[in-house]
Amino acid sequence: MAKVRLALVQTNPVVGAISSNLADCLNWVSKAHAEGADVVLFGEMSATGYPIEDLATRSGFVQQAQDSIDEFARQLQGAGFGEMHVVIGHPALASAQSQGHWAIASNCASVLHSGRVVARYAKHHLPNYGVFDEFRVFVPGNEACTFEVNGIVCSLLICEDIWQSGGPVAQLAANNTDLTLVLNGSPFELEKQSTRLELVSDLAQANHTAVAYVNLVGGQDDLVFDGNSLLVDSSGSLKATGAAFSTGIQLATVESGGAVINDQPIATKPHAKSKSEHDLAAIWNCLTLGLGDYVRKNGFGSVVLGLSGGIDSAVCAAIAVDAIGKDAVFGVSLPSVYSSDHSKSDAFDLAQRLGVAIRTESIAEIVAVTEEQLGLTDLSAENLQARVRGLILMALSNKEGHLTLTTGNKTELAVGYSTIYGDSVGGFAPIKDVPKTMVWDLAEWRNARARAAGEIEPIPQNSITKPPSAELRPDQVDQDSLPPYEQLDAILALYIDGRSSRQEIISTGWDAEVVDKVISLVSSSEWKRRQGAIGPKISGMSFGRDRRMPITNKFR
Amino acid sequence: MAKVRLALVQTNPVVGAISSNLADCLNWVSKAHAEGADVVLFGEMSATGYPIEDLATRSGFVQQAQDSIDEFARQLQGAGFGEMHVVIGHPALASAQSQGHWAIASNCASVLHSGRVVARYAKHHLPNYGVFDEFRVFVPGNEACTFEVNGIVCSLLICEDIWQSGGPVAQLAANNTDLTLVLNGSPFELEKQSTRLELVSDLAQANHTAVAYVNLVGGQDDLVFDGNSLLVDSSGSLKATGAAFSTGIQLATVESGGAVINDQPIATKPHAKSKSEHDLAAIWNCLTLGLGDYVRKNGFGSVVLGLSGGIDSAVCAAIAVDAIGKDAVFGVSLPSVYSSDHSKSDAFDLAQRLGVAIRTESIAEIVAVTEEQLGLTDLSAENLQARVRGLILMALSNKEGHLTLTTGNKTELAVGYSTIYGDSVGGFAPIKDVPKTMVWDLAEWRNARARAAGEIEPIPQNSITKPPSAELRPDQVDQDSLPPYEQLDAILALYIDGRSSRQEIISTGWDAEVVDKVISLVSSSEWKRRQGAIGPKISGMSFGRDRRMPITNKFR
Repeated sequence: MAKVRLALVQTNPVVGAISSNLADCLNWVSKAHAEGADVVLFGEMSATGYPIEDLATRSGFVQQAQDSIDEFARQLQGAGFGEMHVVIGHPALASAQSQGHWAIASNCASVLHSGRVVARYAKHHLPNYGVFDEFRVFVPGNEACTFEVNGIVCSLLICEDIWQSGGPVAQLAANNTDLTLVLNGSPFELEKQSTRLELVSDLAQANHTAVAYVNLVGGQDDLVFDGNSLLVDSSGSLKATGAAFSTGIQLATVESGGAVINDQPIATKPHAKSKSEHDLAAIWNCLTLGLGDYVRKNGFGSVVLGLSGGIDSAVCAAIAVDAIGKDAVFGVSLPSVYSSDHSKSDAFDLAQRLGVAIRTESIAEIVAVTEEQLGLTDLSAENLQARVRGLILMALSNKEGHLTLTTGNKTELAVGYSTIYGDSVGGFAPIKDVPKTMVWDLAEWRNARARAAGEIEPIPQNSITKPPSAELRPDQVDQDSLPPYEQLDAILALYIDGRSSRQEIISTGWDAEVVDKVISLVSSSEWKRRQGAIGPKISGMSFGRDRRMPITNKFR
Repeated sequence: MAKVRLALVQTNPVVGAISSNLADCLNWVSKAHAEGADVVLFGEMSATGYPIEDLATRSGFVQQAQDSIDEFARQLQGAGFGEMHVVIGHPALASAQSQGHWAIASNCASVLHSGRVVARYAKHHLPNYGVFDEFRVFVPGNEACTFEVNGIVCSLLICEDIWQSGGPVAQLAANNTDLTLVLNGSPFELEKQSTRLELVSDLAQANHTAVAYVNLVGGQDDLVFDGNSLLVDSSGSLKATGAAFSTGIQLATVESGGAVINDQPIATKPHAKSKSEHDLAAIWNCLTLGLGDYVRKNGFGSVVLGLSGGIDSAVCAAIAVDAIGKDAVFGVSLPSVYSSDHSKSDAFDLAQRLGVAIRTESIAEIVAVTEEQLGLTDLSAENLQARVRGLILMALSNKEGHLTLTTGNKTELAVGYSTIYGDSVGGFAPIKDVPKTMVWDLAEWRNARARAAGEIEPIPQNSITKPPSAELRPDQVDQDSLPPYEQLDAILALYIDGRSSRQEIISTGWDAEVVDKVISLVSSSEWKRRQGAIGPKISGMSFGRDRRMPITNKFR
């Protein structure tokens, strides 16, 4: 019986770092070769990183990527891997430019064999919704791509191709495909993995083909690729999975007709977790990888953040420690005259639990001098305090070379409950897409994980249980200005994620006055969000590239 | 001979303000009626404003727009205008949703007559390049739309439809179109008007039809619609033009076969201007309308900006005065210990010339207190000065309710020669898309205009002629850190606007070391640009929605 030995490889490429990405791929091909692989499958745009955005419209970049692929094929041959079929993703100049587009290249997968490119597939379905702008930057392909290895017929597809009907998917069965190879750059989103498995499984059954789905790993700006690759046989049964949030290789043997013999059985989960536990763990892993990769890929050695004793900064600090280690995290307590004793002691308690450095920089004197000079009172004086904190954090960032983290959550960003150029300063926002109520859940989950491992709980209980406060005036709590967070998050989920109208939200039972207030706050803070730091997407509707609203906008 | 009397109407709608936009349209229909018009043509999305971005994906918004159009038709009938054919732009729910898209609506033009919608056209070609994301938010139409008035056959098209071949354009001649009505939302871009005229003229000749091209007017976030509507007869001759950068109505009579009898001859230019003078005047009008509309449409009463005595803040202040009047512009001199005497005196000279309020807020004391507390020196101390200026401007903005203007130019933004949360603070950046060398040209042009009108030159000569300096350390000038601006702007034009590669730029004769430095500065300041304020687009490649680059990006 004809068969091929297949390696599914999850890499973590850096956008634009073509030669080091390919050097990494070469290492993986070498490992796959040692395991007897005939075919090696990498993820979408594994040579260049993904998404490359408007880099795809620069011919110098595309040409370099294309030349590097040719060179990589020769390199594989020279290293003794020329017998293998290596499938790698990259942009390539399109033969015809789409009319009226900026796009000059296609999103391609090349098959490298015997020192050259023996087949090339161009992605047919270009996602142009959510965070994706592929119709902007790529020319769609319109031909199926099939090649044979050891008598096994392989067909190529790229990511969105399997999420839409029509196009090359429709030709899988007609081409007698035994093994469908799908290169993906699919960012993490809560509850997406079950959708992927269903899709891949249906594709396999409908077309009588094994399907290998390889995803990238790693953080790229506001996206985090979660790996979680899949291999199903032609009956739709799951036969192998890639690691979540880490690089790695999986091997299996695929026979004609799409039967799969896996090297090892699918790992069963070590202990039954509730869905909520499972989701929170995945989110935590997403946030730590997103932050960690931003720090590493942009060459930072450390981060600095303000520690207020509140839940947001506590969770951000814990994420940072899990992402880059405690020695690379620098906390600053920035008390004002309104800061409670607990806000200072909770910040120090957190730092001690995490083992991170903390120092105190009082904002009192700078605030006093400025308030006095400008005669500030009320809101302008409140904003001043937040801005002096931002000033200090950015000064420490400049002086000591840290990346500044901004600790705002999705709820705050939605309603503009933050001071622009104040608490919003920073290059990265670890919990930007996490609603306030989920911030608490994450804190509880992380503490529980520590308890289960016999470790110290990183987040002080007091930071979890006390009423949230910006502490910009005496005895202030968030709930003075905002609806209770449970209500606020529920309404925001309908309005932002669900795109519901005012009337639809009210018809589900929410008070009209509260709904109007929330919608008004969301609309009037669009200009602040537009100037916000990037942070990892975990939802179907993150702020940033997912939701593109005009600033000047009278619709409520 | 069959004929219709046509009114081309340029309105300045506010995005989302459907009822006030339609109330404005009703006034124009009334004026057109008084002039005997049979057909009234408004611009693209004239009912809702344009671009509506992701508002188009919210069914509540689209439904409201659609209902408002039905109501508007009844209103026209009730007001005695039911005999007229009124063509207006708006989104409408599409019958079929594009697969895998977020789009639920089409970009439509409706013909209102006898109290109802008698014809509706959906835009066929959806621009999805540059600042446009229409393939993201709209479902493309695929049918031509033709209707008859007084025996004259009219066909509808929307904007991009005439910039691409194929689609409904191809059916104009087959449908015996006498008059092609094109609704446009075409943002100002230097040298675009001649391209539009050529396009419209070619369209008319090729299809033996008169073509009426109506464009919107007004600023919407980073876009400025410049009006400049066109009417050509079937021989391609220009017969009427709309005003540049202002609302208004033009009437003409169109006969069968596409002959046009204009009400008045095309205005000849009052005096011959050089191309450069003409361009600078158009840019100035674009910038003043862009800023003015942002202020008015977002309900601000005034602006505040730092006046350094330098050319950028001087030009921004002059734009602001021309946009919203001198009484609404508040200048602040923010001297440090390094500020030269001339920087203070030039700022006061400017304020006096413009007649705007100016006050002095020294940054010395706040800087000294902060520097001392944090032990800052060198670059971190330089950045601190810029941030204290930002702190003061934002405090005054909060206290007094002004919109803060940030005065950075395109060259600075390109190479990151600015302090984030410092001189970059503000909600609007009037000269964001203006390269430094063009800032000087604009200043000279504006002064010359004043001289020609017998007015005081607004910009002090000294601000134009002195070497630019950030004055963050003694005797600093920009050219200590940057290549000369003439070189810098030339290289940036190749790299940013021309998308040339490093090698292509070097091959035109530029020094490799300088080119590498510029490219490296552009790449490493991407994160700062991402957090920048919006400002009016004047070029083919503005920072913002035109140029979408990853932050994490190793390609140079």
